[in-house]
Amino acid sequence: MKDSVDITFIGNIKSELTDMAQCPMQGYEGAPAARVEIYPPFRAALKGVKPGARLTLLTWLDRGDRSVLQVHPRNNPDNPLTGVFLTRSPNRPNLIGLHEVSVLESDETGLRVEPLETLNHTPVIDIKLSLPSRV
Amino acid sequence: MKDSVDITFIGNIKSELTDMAQCPMQGYEGAPAARVEIYPPFRAALKGVKPGARLTLLTWLDRGDRSVLQVHPRNNPDNPLTGVFLTRSPNRPNLIGLHEVSVLESDETGLRVEPLETLNHTPVIDIKLSLPSRV
Repeated sequence: MKDSVDITFIGNIKSELTDMAQCPMQGYEGAPAARVEIYPPFRAALKGVKPGARLTLLTWLDRGDRSVLQVHPRNNPDNPLTGVFLTRSPNRPNLIGLHEVSVLESDETGLRVEPLETLNHTPVIDIKLSLPSRV
Repeated sequence: MKDSVDITFIGNIKSELTDMAQCPMQGYEGAPAARVEIYPPFRAALKGVKPGARLTLLTWLDRGDRSVLQVHPRNNPDNPLTGVFLTRSPNRPNLIGLHEVSVLESDETGLRVEPLETLNHTPVIDIKLSLPSRV
């Protein structure tokens, strides 16, 4: 049985955010718009994406720490130590970021979306149609 | 610049679903409960997860086809050919599945959750706290 797999970077983020200290913890906490640049082999997978679409963007949070299993949520020591699987911490065994965004502009090479709390140059690993929340 | 990264399987799914023909397309379309078994090195990251928690489970859909870039949504030829980034197709460059679930039971080795539309033995790659939908 395999115990890991290789994921391919399908694109990357162009953002005004270049320093972690600038990044909101969640997109809805004041994050800016950003460009999602898709690499040529994957651009056909954008077919049909139009402004107004609501997408779930998956990124690889390459500045994160894969050894972290427990954190104080929101970096607040008053919050009890919690398993990262019950948080949105960017530090976790696989550094996958999940972002609900709206499409502002689209062309054959990428998208402009908002809000997005990730740093400039963050790799993109998947994009999916958002489904209405049912939980 | 790196163009890929290795992700680690942190656990796997124990489900009564053993045949793709049995699997609903979305969890809310009648999917059953299933067990999420977490491997020993990652179990500390479950700390604090209790029944009733709403989590986003990320899986590796290992029966998918990574070469597919466009599909007819819901396998219906009447739906126009659409880029996979505007769909929830299990076939896509990185075979990541995204599942909104509720926790039914939790212990130090894993969780019982519902609903879950993935096959038995599907690898688990991440678990996050669900955030209320804002789109």
